[in-house]
Amino acid sequence: MKARAAVAWAPRQPLSIEEIDVEGPKEGEVLLKVVASGVCHTDAFTLSGEDPEGAFPCVLGHEGGCEVVECGPGVKGLKPGDHVIPLYIPECGECEYCRSTKTNLCQSIAATVWTGYMPDRTRRFSHQGKPIYHYMGCSTFSEYTVVPEIALAKVNPAAPLDKVCLLGCGITTGIGAVRNTAQVEPGSSVAVFGLGGIGLSVIQGAVMAQADRIIAVDVNPDKFEMARALGATDCVNPADLGTTVTEAIVEMTGGGVDYSFECIGNVEVMREALECCHMGWGVSTIIGVAGAGQEIHTRPFQLVTGRTWKGSAFGGVKGRSQLPDYVEQYLNGRIEIDRLVTHTLPLEEINTAFDLMHAGKSIRSVIIF
Amino acid sequence: MKARAAVAWAPRQPLSIEEIDVEGPKEGEVLLKVVASGVCHTDAFTLSGEDPEGAFPCVLGHEGGCEVVECGPGVKGLKPGDHVIPLYIPECGECEYCRSTKTNLCQSIAATVWTGYMPDRTRRFSHQGKPIYHYMGCSTFSEYTVVPEIALAKVNPAAPLDKVCLLGCGITTGIGAVRNTAQVEPGSSVAVFGLGGIGLSVIQGAVMAQADRIIAVDVNPDKFEMARALGATDCVNPADLGTTVTEAIVEMTGGGVDYSFECIGNVEVMREALECCHMGWGVSTIIGVAGAGQEIHTRPFQLVTGRTWKGSAFGGVKGRSQLPDYVEQYLNGRIEIDRLVTHTLPLEEINTAFDLMHAGKSIRSVIIF
Repeated sequence: MKARAAVAWAPRQPLSIEEIDVEGPKEGEVLLKVVASGVCHTDAFTLSGEDPEGAFPCVLGHEGGCEVVECGPGVKGLKPGDHVIPLYIPECGECEYCRSTKTNLCQSIAATVWTGYMPDRTRRFSHQGKPIYHYMGCSTFSEYTVVPEIALAKVNPAAPLDKVCLLGCGITTGIGAVRNTAQVEPGSSVAVFGLGGIGLSVIQGAVMAQADRIIAVDVNPDKFEMARALGATDCVNPADLGTTVTEAIVEMTGGGVDYSFECIGNVEVMREALECCHMGWGVSTIIGVAGAGQEIHTRPFQLVTGRTWKGSAFGGVKGRSQLPDYVEQYLNGRIEIDRLVTHTLPLEEINTAFDLMHAGKSIRSVIIF
Repeated sequence: MKARAAVAWAPRQPLSIEEIDVEGPKEGEVLLKVVASGVCHTDAFTLSGEDPEGAFPCVLGHEGGCEVVECGPGVKGLKPGDHVIPLYIPECGECEYCRSTKTNLCQSIAATVWTGYMPDRTRRFSHQGKPIYHYMGCSTFSEYTVVPEIALAKVNPAAPLDKVCLLGCGITTGIGAVRNTAQVEPGSSVAVFGLGGIGLSVIQGAVMAQADRIIAVDVNPDKFEMARALGATDCVNPADLGTTVTEAIVEMTGGGVDYSFECIGNVEVMREALECCHMGWGVSTIIGVAGAGQEIHTRPFQLVTGRTWKGSAFGGVKGRSQLPDYVEQYLNGRIEIDRLVTHTLPLEEINTAFDLMHAGKSIRSVIIF
């Protein structure tokens, strides 16, 4: 089958719109028509060449809203026409991670997903006979893609795919980090570092968790209006302070916040996020992805005096069993997505979406096929 | 009042047995006769000059078993003859830390305890008119000492003070870190780095928590017999391995331990302890105290993939309300102390206790007055 796709031929180059070949689904796999796909910082991170796991040429994209076109042999829970969101963390339901209530990090196909292959170690994409790598098991910057059934969340068909596609990464990651990983309690104080799609979704999650105080931190003050609209009570621009952010937040809160979230991927900010937490009980959660080889550091005294350092991937959400409920919460008005979609673009303009992101002018662009 | 005491006149010098003057208790304070005192690595750490908060000359010692001699004005809950254990972390019952169920780090008198003064910013010790600093609010290397009532746990007088004195620090710290901080669950796997009094007590705590596998790590294989006697299932000497400890433990456990504890104060071991934890749910707790300015570091990926980094001080135990139960558990045979007391020495031989500790020949020496 032929498909229009945005191919990343090499790092640090614009994506190129090509007609590629997509092979049909093999055992346990599903052929999808991608209706819409968000463009996330993680796509840009891999495209930058900083991602040590990035394999080129590839089809990027991992925030998809899709329809099932064809099911391969052995697929039991899906049929053509179903609406699904691809999952870069699958849920096989059988591995020790899936059986644990403490994690969502299903490892059933981790050996292939992060190297750009399908579980059988082959690929379904090619261009003029040359194979193209998959990306995060999703590759949603293609009109058609192939994903294993265990990496597909079946969602309510009433939900618009050009909105709920964002639940495939950023929004779920932010809300889930608050609810599942940190388990923010009513009345808490929260600091959010970085106001992209994830940071803004942390604010949403904090509001859902009934946090009393939500401090939004970003060096781009253009982000503050949306942060306030979603529920931030205070907005802090580090450039405006005479002190460090840590000192400012400790001062504002009389000792530090109960919970903090790093949504950038900057190891120095990760330290600030930890150290602005309250002694005795503060919990800091790392969501951002740092560059290859970079390390976090702090004095162990920060932990010995009662702070906890955690991290979160996809918000700790088990995709197949829990993501459908996020879609329901969107439909019920409890999760905001529409306002986060600042730009909707056709596939041919996908490089504009990256430009808008880098210029800090978009929250999320959604590509429509 | 005159008292025999071991005075630390300066860093890196043997303690000197002196007859010092001890002033009576002021408002809210209690004069104690010290019956016995453990000698802990923290005393040696301060004596080494590495402790940035160490103030000299001082009376060290913070693992005391004491009798109340005289109560100052305003002391309500104690009377002469009561048996008490001094607390370097007090419990005022009123500050926001005491009111929180998440921490034991009462801050009511923190501004003075860690600088060598009593809460009213004066001192009760002197020698020939020259004032001597207190230490950790306890100073139990003196026949008599003065401690605020809020820093005294009243304990069952049936308990031998030359044993339960060790509940004033090391044993409670180890057991509490397992039960309160990490909250180890039945069936868990546990790794313990460093088999001093605290590490051995982590093993006890892990047994109490019904851990299935308890891996004890130390470079001194002489510690392994006691570790096994207390319940360690595996003993690992890093010097015997062809790989790193992290790799060895991940291999032994098929992915890493559920819980690890650093009981040394070495920032490189703190990293190993974190990284030998299982992806998805491993929790590493720092108990050891690192040298001034030293920092822990790791790749944030370790946390983003589901490991948690915590720390613990005095095992998260609220001293006045929870320590008496530790004494009861000792009396009921559920907490082992006797075997950890490898040496009992008179005050005059206190420097021998430090020598034995540095030579790795003792677990705990107890000084008897």
